[in-house]
Amino acid sequence: MSHTPRPHQAMGAGAEFDTIRGLMARWGDLAVDIGDDAAVLPDSPGVRVISTDACVEEVHFRRAWISAREVGTRAAAAALSDLAAMGARPESVLIAFMVPEAWRDALGDVADGMGEVIRAAGARIVGGNLTRGSVFSVTTTVLGVANRAVGRHGAQVGDVVVVTGLLGGPGAALEAWNRGESPTAWARGRFAAPVPRWAEGAALAAAGATAMIDVSDGVLADAGHVAAASGVQLRLDPARLPLGPGIEAANAMQSGEEYELLATVPANRYDRLAAGWRATFAVPLTVIGTVVACPPTGATRPAEGAQGFDHFAPPSPPR
Amino acid sequence: MSHTPRPHQAMGAGAEFDTIRGLMARWGDLAVDIGDDAAVLPDSPGVRVISTDACVEEVHFRRAWISAREVGTRAAAAALSDLAAMGARPESVLIAFMVPEAWRDALGDVADGMGEVIRAAGARIVGGNLTRGSVFSVTTTVLGVANRAVGRHGAQVGDVVVVTGLLGGPGAALEAWNRGESPTAWARGRFAAPVPRWAEGAALAAAGATAMIDVSDGVLADAGHVAAASGVQLRLDPARLPLGPGIEAANAMQSGEEYELLATVPANRYDRLAAGWRATFAVPLTVIGTVVACPPTGATRPAEGAQGFDHFAPPSPPR
Repeated sequence: MSHTPRPHQAMGAGAEFDTIRGLMARWGDLAVDIGDDAAVLPDSPGVRVISTDACVEEVHFRRAWISAREVGTRAAAAALSDLAAMGARPESVLIAFMVPEAWRDALGDVADGMGEVIRAAGARIVGGNLTRGSVFSVTTTVLGVANRAVGRHGAQVGDVVVVTGLLGGPGAALEAWNRGESPTAWARGRFAAPVPRWAEGAALAAAGATAMIDVSDGVLADAGHVAAASGVQLRLDPARLPLGPGIEAANAMQSGEEYELLATVPANRYDRLAAGWRATFAVPLTVIGTVVACPPTGATRPAEGAQGFDHFAPPSPPR
Repeated sequence: MSHTPRPHQAMGAGAEFDTIRGLMARWGDLAVDIGDDAAVLPDSPGVRVISTDACVEEVHFRRAWISAREVGTRAAAAALSDLAAMGARPESVLIAFMVPEAWRDALGDVADGMGEVIRAAGARIVGGNLTRGSVFSVTTTVLGVANRAVGRHGAQVGDVVVVTGLLGGPGAALEAWNRGESPTAWARGRFAAPVPRWAEGAALAAAGATAMIDVSDGVLADAGHVAAASGVQLRLDPARLPLGPGIEAANAMQSGEEYELLATVPANRYDRLAAGWRATFAVPLTVIGTVVACPPTGATRPAEGAQGFDHFAPPSPPR
């Protein structure tokens, strides 16, 4: 069935609805059809995917580190990155805010930051929730549509392991802040305003990627998730990691809060992918390893399967 | 495209994933295909609707009032009720937990309570998020499918206003707890284990309801939301409110955290609806008012439109 967005509905009186009206005014045509108990989704061809992601003060960021607007860009980008990791195009977003008194005046700036990223993604805000609470958090639910959804479980022995972008920025920023220092502008920007790789994810999906994940837990941990889900080992070569300025390989391997994509791609499809990539994207695509078979023991239980990931294996010969 | 649920994917090692594995074990076949960055949704005919709802300790409940399991039943029921209010059948659920240390041991019981309600709804858990935080909260995103989605904006002059069930329980329970007393078993049950009215909502939608809402803000406020969205007045008769045992009309009118449905129905369709209702549902359906035109002034701005709701109008003649 088709769905024609209507203007927002008039809402009743009250401080909560005044706040929601204020958010609607900021978001303008980015938010559609807000006001019912539930939002009606557009009907789109393709595979629909959905994810939800929370961003919590003192857990995912500290207020002294980044501005309220950056809290918003970061939260929206982190949530939307999960769609990129499936090869999906963002379509609809729901935003659930928990707002302590001390954050009331900053909420508009957070909303602006989220709006900026959601607009760049080509998505719309279709619903949400607003509650008070003793800590600031925003839980963002994102829906997307894929021609071909790529999960974590399909990595095949012989595939190459690729990663987008330059690694290590968010980890370096966090380390600097935790030492009481200021991070470099590059590292800070990578933490405060990550750029989800939707177009890159869709290109990897179209190129036949067998598994894909964003490296929000760090390359090391997320390669481990792919390995565990696929029942294989990912043998990574630290010497080949694409490092950001001033970053060391060991740190890049563990830097989380990072929204680059790691994918496994059939070896015979890589050259064509790489040629098209350079013609299309500014962000680099780097081969960082290969998929190998699990050793014959220790790969039956999930926790042990995770050990299939080859932490710091001897560097493999350059490809 | 069709979608065949796969078994859960093996996840990597770590305390967070151990917790998620524990939840998966509790939920069994209620949770499907957990483990990718985003979940692939089944492809269903009909109108897809989505909503998100947060339940926060010290805002929506206190731990001294209800058990951890009841925190779960209440949170899931509150979220799923938004689908009932659209006339939609629940299909998929995502659950984002924020878990302080003090709640770690209770998380399984919360999950059991949520699972009970989600199973009764015929839905599946397809994803979620887990984070630590200084306060317990669960943000539940629900997707449903409707033959005909009913919003808040379609109430027409001349419609009758109906409400399901008996009102006032949650408000009475909260009042008792706030006085340091124990609520009655009925009132307590209405707060701790509300029963969303999916089948009833679908029947109201099929009967041609022009607007529908759940009365989670209380009949008074939620009738105001319908009035504001529809640009009409809802004239309610306090004498006709279906009261729970020991409840007074003024309290029933304002009792929130209540998951009955309020709907407006064309007057000429009501008799047939009522006859079918009694043959189908145990929960009563009661006419509590009528939809009338807005006065000629004061109905153009949302905040003023809300005043279109006729708070305690003189009782209308019995229907």
